[in-house]
Amino acid sequence: MNDLWTWHGGALDAAKRHFGESDAAWIDLSTGINPMPWPGTETLRIDWHCLPEPGALADLEAAAATFFGVEARHVCAVPGTEIGLRLVGRLIGGDASHVVPGYRTHGAMFAGSGAIARDAAADSGGTLVVANPNNPDGHILDLHAVRAARPPHDWLLVDEAFADAQPAMSVAREVSNDRRLIVFRSFGKFFGLAGVRLGFVIAPQPLLSELRAWLGAWPLSAAALAIGTAAYRDHEWAAAARARLPVSAAALDDVLKRHDLTPIGDCPLFRLVETPHAGALFERLARATILTRPFADRPHWLRFGLPADAAALARLDAALAGG
Amino acid sequence: MNDLWTWHGGALDAAKRHFGESDAAWIDLSTGINPMPWPGTETLRIDWHCLPEPGALADLEAAAATFFGVEARHVCAVPGTEIGLRLVGRLIGGDASHVVPGYRTHGAMFAGSGAIARDAAADSGGTLVVANPNNPDGHILDLHAVRAARPPHDWLLVDEAFADAQPAMSVAREVSNDRRLIVFRSFGKFFGLAGVRLGFVIAPQPLLSELRAWLGAWPLSAAALAIGTAAYRDHEWAAAARARLPVSAAALDDVLKRHDLTPIGDCPLFRLVETPHAGALFERLARATILTRPFADRPHWLRFGLPADAAALARLDAALAGG
Repeated sequence: MNDLWTWHGGALDAAKRHFGESDAAWIDLSTGINPMPWPGTETLRIDWHCLPEPGALADLEAAAATFFGVEARHVCAVPGTEIGLRLVGRLIGGDASHVVPGYRTHGAMFAGSGAIARDAAADSGGTLVVANPNNPDGHILDLHAVRAARPPHDWLLVDEAFADAQPAMSVAREVSNDRRLIVFRSFGKFFGLAGVRLGFVIAPQPLLSELRAWLGAWPLSAAALAIGTAAYRDHEWAAAARARLPVSAAALDDVLKRHDLTPIGDCPLFRLVETPHAGALFERLARATILTRPFADRPHWLRFGLPADAAALARLDAALAGG
Repeated sequence: MNDLWTWHGGALDAAKRHFGESDAAWIDLSTGINPMPWPGTETLRIDWHCLPEPGALADLEAAAATFFGVEARHVCAVPGTEIGLRLVGRLIGGDASHVVPGYRTHGAMFAGSGAIARDAAADSGGTLVVANPNNPDGHILDLHAVRAARPPHDWLLVDEAFADAQPAMSVAREVSNDRRLIVFRSFGKFFGLAGVRLGFVIAPQPLLSELRAWLGAWPLSAAALAIGTAAYRDHEWAAAARARLPVSAAALDDVLKRHDLTPIGDCPLFRLVETPHAGALFERLARATILTRPFADRPHWLRFGLPADAAALARLDAALAGG
């Protein structure tokens, strides 16, 4: 299987080249990005000419902080969670572990980071990196138990890239200057706008000061500032999305079960399936111009993002039936 | 004088609040950003939904490399030169000097960086950071003399943020894997699109591998990828801009000289003026809704960006005449 599909999701161009163009449009289920994006991008006027004003960054961080339910002084916007994870890892340094299975980048944040099973997370020493909900299996961890079991001077880094659909599970509110807790949030997944490249580090202020010295005065594009600020202020859209996503996930579950596949996961933005036929299933779906997400080190796994609508779900249903 | 004007240019919102809104639109001459931007942004379709495809980054870097006249393997795109400068400084570390007067960020790249006069640059030990053309005085340095005088194992970092108008002066072509030379290029100044946040590090490949590990797979927004690629391929526009900018700069020179101000600098994107009345001149122009760039540590200096057109130049002329 081509390494392009198993590295990260979202390599649709490569899939088109490999499997051939088709009359049918491709359905990209290879990511956990909301297929029903926040709809306001078309009406925003983006000022590409000027350097962003200093106040625009503060406005975005204030809007995001309100959305996350945290104080703005603990929020630093970054041009994508990906770079935020990597820079914070370099800033903290030292011994670290990352929970597996998990998101690949977590293992690249710290030199020599040790992979650790979820069940052993509470016993880990040094910095611990964990995603909640986890990717790709959508598992939601009881972080309170993990935190209670670990020494308070060890950093806990929680990647909440997929938490926006279930904000009650977030530990972002517990970030403070006297606690070694950092939370990462991602704009692109829940709002369905991954091309904007916008993420947030929620951390003690001294760490954010260091991070800002690495980023400089204009870390974000005019578009990320305008789109992010407007979207995070749109609490009505967010509430509707939170109501809609579980319905879409349940409809996906029904289709998967109909084809004897057992959906795994508690995050409504994607589902994992475990089957000895995962490789063949990936190929069959790709020939039907549906891209899913296989995993090189877990050949029995296949992850499905949400189909955008009933038509896409019906095409998935038909492709799962054929074969 | 308010610190907002002297920190960096481009704080127009703050100027409006401080000096009051006016019927006349503000003319922002506080930056060196081309006031006649590359015009293609309106017609590009930006895909905000998907994660950028891996090939899009490679396409941008290839287009930029051709534009710079270098090999693509030496080019790494970053979300703004500002973050590129700061991350490369952290990657290299060690003893460093930065030439003053210069760009403020150069002194923040390395911990304990020593300020050094331009005339002493050749004698500096350790890493040397220099801008060429320099900002804010537009001075063009003979880098060959500087390089010949310094030990070859010491890094030389050249910020060519304003070099696109005079590409023959660039040393980017001399970057290679066996030379400790790094060149920084900026998209926003010459193309007049600073809100895109796009810059480039041109460096030996081993250093770029480390930098890419800090940035991750998606360092750039979909807009930066689409706009940057199309603009760097538009060699016709670039040639026309290179012909037009010196004409605009000469027209600005004429107006400054008419008011007994002596324009300094060899970069056609801005001019520096030295006068004991710089502070009063800044205030007078701001009351006429024209924002220029003062400097806290050089109270006799005022920098002027290019007026966008004849009407803006005429307003500057009138404001300089008024007293």
